[in-house]
Amino acid sequence: MDSAALLDLLGNENRRRILRLLSRKPCYVTEISDYLGVSPKAVIEHLRKLEEAGLVESRTDDQRRKYFHIARNVRLEVNVSPYGFGAKSAYPTNSSFDITTCRHLSLNVTYDETCELDELLSTLDNLEQLENELSLAQRWVQGRLCNVLDQISETVGTGPESRIYADILASIRKEPKGVGTLSRDVDAPRDVIANLLEEMADDGIVHRTERGWELASSE
Amino acid sequence: MDSAALLDLLGNENRRRILRLLSRKPCYVTEISDYLGVSPKAVIEHLRKLEEAGLVESRTDDQRRKYFHIARNVRLEVNVSPYGFGAKSAYPTNSSFDITTCRHLSLNVTYDETCELDELLSTLDNLEQLENELSLAQRWVQGRLCNVLDQISETVGTGPESRIYADILASIRKEPKGVGTLSRDVDAPRDVIANLLEEMADDGIVHRTERGWELASSE
Repeated sequence: MDSAALLDLLGNENRRRILRLLSRKPCYVTEISDYLGVSPKAVIEHLRKLEEAGLVESRTDDQRRKYFHIARNVRLEVNVSPYGFGAKSAYPTNSSFDITTCRHLSLNVTYDETCELDELLSTLDNLEQLENELSLAQRWVQGRLCNVLDQISETVGTGPESRIYADILASIRKEPKGVGTLSRDVDAPRDVIANLLEEMADDGIVHRTERGWELASSE
Repeated sequence: MDSAALLDLLGNENRRRILRLLSRKPCYVTEISDYLGVSPKAVIEHLRKLEEAGLVESRTDDQRRKYFHIARNVRLEVNVSPYGFGAKSAYPTNSSFDITTCRHLSLNVTYDETCELDELLSTLDNLEQLENELSLAQRWVQGRLCNVLDQISETVGTGPESRIYADILASIRKEPKGVGTLSRDVDAPRDVIANLLEEMADDGIVHRTERGWELASSE
């Protein structure tokens, strides 16, 4: 499911409370209604939206009473900074995914299939610690990304909010490019790109060659 | 800012579009209103909420016209799974934070202060790749956490949605505990904890000793 739909769903406090409740145990509508102090009708409407999105599912018990539980694993990440607003959602990877192929990080956790309770609990503990460290690492990366973008803005001499300069420079750093290609890469209109390139050319940061625009420093 | 307030703000599509626009460049109200196709009055109301939360700030230009830009770095993570619903928000770490103290992961990226444009762009590229790998790693961890919790449920013989069993077992694995302490640790009523412990004692998974409840296997 896409991040916009997920944010719409999670933007409602009662829906968040329903998810928190269901993540502790499956519930009947009346249980949810009592716990939230919200009418069964409103609860049913929230559950309908959560069910439509596939986040929640219902089953019936022995007495044919319907109860609800969380059906799906999903993860949402949102970054807000002067240099960007990004939201992405994704499903957990399955166990055959090889995490050791990552080039920029390595994990010091082993995950073995086992059915020894003590080992399972120890793995759970390690995974939870790793989860916290990954979160911390992402906050570290976000901080450093902003530092680097600040420094690029300073070097290029633009205002602090001009992510687009960095995107253009990063794009032509790999290979020289024309305005049309850059316009697609950076997702901005051709005339905006052309103006920014001319501006940076005047400052001696980029120049135009036969192959396209490239960094002046890369000569 | 707490994750609930952030989710409330981000739960509105037009506010998300405003943030996306402002992350590309600072804007006047009229620019935002034109871009969104929404009345200036509605835009002002959205901006007021974003300003109150500290996400957005205004400045005035040479002609004393007010314009808006993103003021704050913040990061939001949400996990939804049959075993838990968690949302957390946090600010990026500052550059003095020592990421090498992490026990369960190591990053293969160097971050040096530099003002060479080419080096800055190369660091930017590496940080962006690392960001993607960290995201991937968290999806891997979330997948493995669910696998482990599935296996714990199977071993303990409870339904698949019973995170609380794993929380109790993880808590007493570290040291024997009484019902009161467990009730606080796991954040569940005393009688619920007491019943679950009795149930698991009947199955030979835990037992009560002088020091409190502990895993039967740890003897």
